[in-house]
Amino acid sequence: MRSVPEFRQDPVNGRWVIIARERGRRPTDFEAPPPPPPDGFCPFCPGSEPHTPPEIYAVRPGKDDKWLLRVIPNKFPVLQVEGELGRVGEGIYDRMNGLGAHEVIIESPFHNKPLAALEVPAIEEVLKAYHVRYVDLKRDIRLRYVLVFRNQGEAAGASVAHPHSQLIALPIVPKRVQQELDGARRHYEYKERCIFCDILRQELADGSRVVLENEGFVVLSPYAARLPFETWIVPKVHQSSYEDISGDQFRSLARILKNLLLRLARVLKDPPYNYMIHTAPLQNGARDSYHWHIEVIPKLTKVAGFEWGSGLYVNPTAPEDATVFLREARVEREF
Amino acid sequence: MRSVPEFRQDPVNGRWVIIARERGRRPTDFEAPPPPPPDGFCPFCPGSEPHTPPEIYAVRPGKDDKWLLRVIPNKFPVLQVEGELGRVGEGIYDRMNGLGAHEVIIESPFHNKPLAALEVPAIEEVLKAYHVRYVDLKRDIRLRYVLVFRNQGEAAGASVAHPHSQLIALPIVPKRVQQELDGARRHYEYKERCIFCDILRQELADGSRVVLENEGFVVLSPYAARLPFETWIVPKVHQSSYEDISGDQFRSLARILKNLLLRLARVLKDPPYNYMIHTAPLQNGARDSYHWHIEVIPKLTKVAGFEWGSGLYVNPTAPEDATVFLREARVEREF
Repeated sequence: MRSVPEFRQDPVNGRWVIIARERGRRPTDFEAPPPPPPDGFCPFCPGSEPHTPPEIYAVRPGKDDKWLLRVIPNKFPVLQVEGELGRVGEGIYDRMNGLGAHEVIIESPFHNKPLAALEVPAIEEVLKAYHVRYVDLKRDIRLRYVLVFRNQGEAAGASVAHPHSQLIALPIVPKRVQQELDGARRHYEYKERCIFCDILRQELADGSRVVLENEGFVVLSPYAARLPFETWIVPKVHQSSYEDISGDQFRSLARILKNLLLRLARVLKDPPYNYMIHTAPLQNGARDSYHWHIEVIPKLTKVAGFEWGSGLYVNPTAPEDATVFLREARVEREF
Repeated sequence: MRSVPEFRQDPVNGRWVIIARERGRRPTDFEAPPPPPPDGFCPFCPGSEPHTPPEIYAVRPGKDDKWLLRVIPNKFPVLQVEGELGRVGEGIYDRMNGLGAHEVIIESPFHNKPLAALEVPAIEEVLKAYHVRYVDLKRDIRLRYVLVFRNQGEAAGASVAHPHSQLIALPIVPKRVQQELDGARRHYEYKERCIFCDILRQELADGSRVVLENEGFVVLSPYAARLPFETWIVPKVHQSSYEDISGDQFRSLARILKNLLLRLARVLKDPPYNYMIHTAPLQNGARDSYHWHIEVIPKLTKVAGFEWGSGLYVNPTAPEDATVFLREARVEREF
């Protein structure tokens, strides 16, 4: 029996969760990872197109059917796009239907080429695909937020080996983003300046946490990094939303992202990692106070009881030390 | 070179982190877990006392030197108890010294007996040791919060196999607790009732998320559980702080905790897990609005980019389903 996913809100701390029963995990399912598909079948490789849900977007530069990138709905979505939000109370609790979208960006036809190994123009197409989907989903007024993210490696949550990113569109602004929006707004009300622009100015003057810089972007080790080798990619011009990215910025971002990922791979021996794009909500711009950026988190340590209980992270590698390691890493060439 | 741990605050979202350089992780340290100690040496077993920092508390029921439980400072503390807070700005940023305490509660002399396998009176001693340390640390007015937590299994962050709990005393109220305090206060201002008492009343009337109940405590699957098989142990009487626990409550809590841990072990085949005690801050009671409780989280799924980026958890097991599995688990006897 498939049942509809639902949002539920914790009445104490206001945190929403998605209860996605249809993913159907019974206790015994947690014991071992699912068996690999038979005969090395990959649902994302060329030739598997009939087995995926209908394509949403693709890049096909030639006259034949060959694609360089495809976007499809997730076959096992945590949210579904049909229906109404149906927000209701259950006594002291709040719930609503699991309305939203869950898409997969298949980054290239190459099963064994991680994102960092693609050529810069191919990475640029991935970044443009995020943008195309973002702009399209914004037209659905039921949706408030689009989160683009990438899980590399099984320890970082990737369940299919073929390189891909994901996108989840939500009818709420997620808590972690809301906290950033609130903090940025407080700073703006006090100073009439964007806090991320202020951070960039201080970091570029100081230099000790600047990993990389090109004409469009800066890669920083954040001052209060939660995790070892956490970095942020921040656009140099003030832009609140990923929607604002245009023209040469795609190429600059592709170059600095490739450069950063190659350095992480070199220093940390191909670590599992996650990245996610933090951008302004779809319907309320926060245009002056917020500044979009990408957070990149290698998965090196285990989250234990202290972090779960407190939300306070213990980081054993100072951001200044991580910066030196990443800056000094030898990569074939700069991009 | 040992350097002092420090607190740093993210200027955007207000999140504090602890940068604990002295734990000295260089990039290559993340590749593999540390090698096991030679000859099966365990720092927490009887006979290893000379190798631990000086004892803070112990239970020695007989006239000899044999102990049933010991509390010692953590040999590799993330915080240190000497010195001043030294809160200063660094341009746009805020930092302070890593002041606090980090202690280890060695739960029994038995290297291979997990907490759930101890007899009820021995578990009661563990719960009393938490209380003794809580009351003692409260006298240090520089400290604002004591977080007691337990990591069971390597995947849940345990680095020493000998069963133990830990305690970290902090000069700040951690974010995740503050969010609960704020939500509980809002409810209290609106209703003049404790929100946890309201939750208990609704859950006991409804029944579908009640895992266990005895004279002093209720075990619930929370309505908006973040993770599969997450449960909370909540005292039936209104108490804001773990400091308030007394008399028969220790025995009731020991019995229900053992019962719950045995059920989790049965249903999920000895899963790694974390638990942590959420209690009111040391110096500001929140006496009417807050209600202490224990959160128990089996480690069954991986936190991926979506959760990291959003703070929004996707839970594949409905709390009502988890409740049924746990209730129907066969344990030798009820405790």
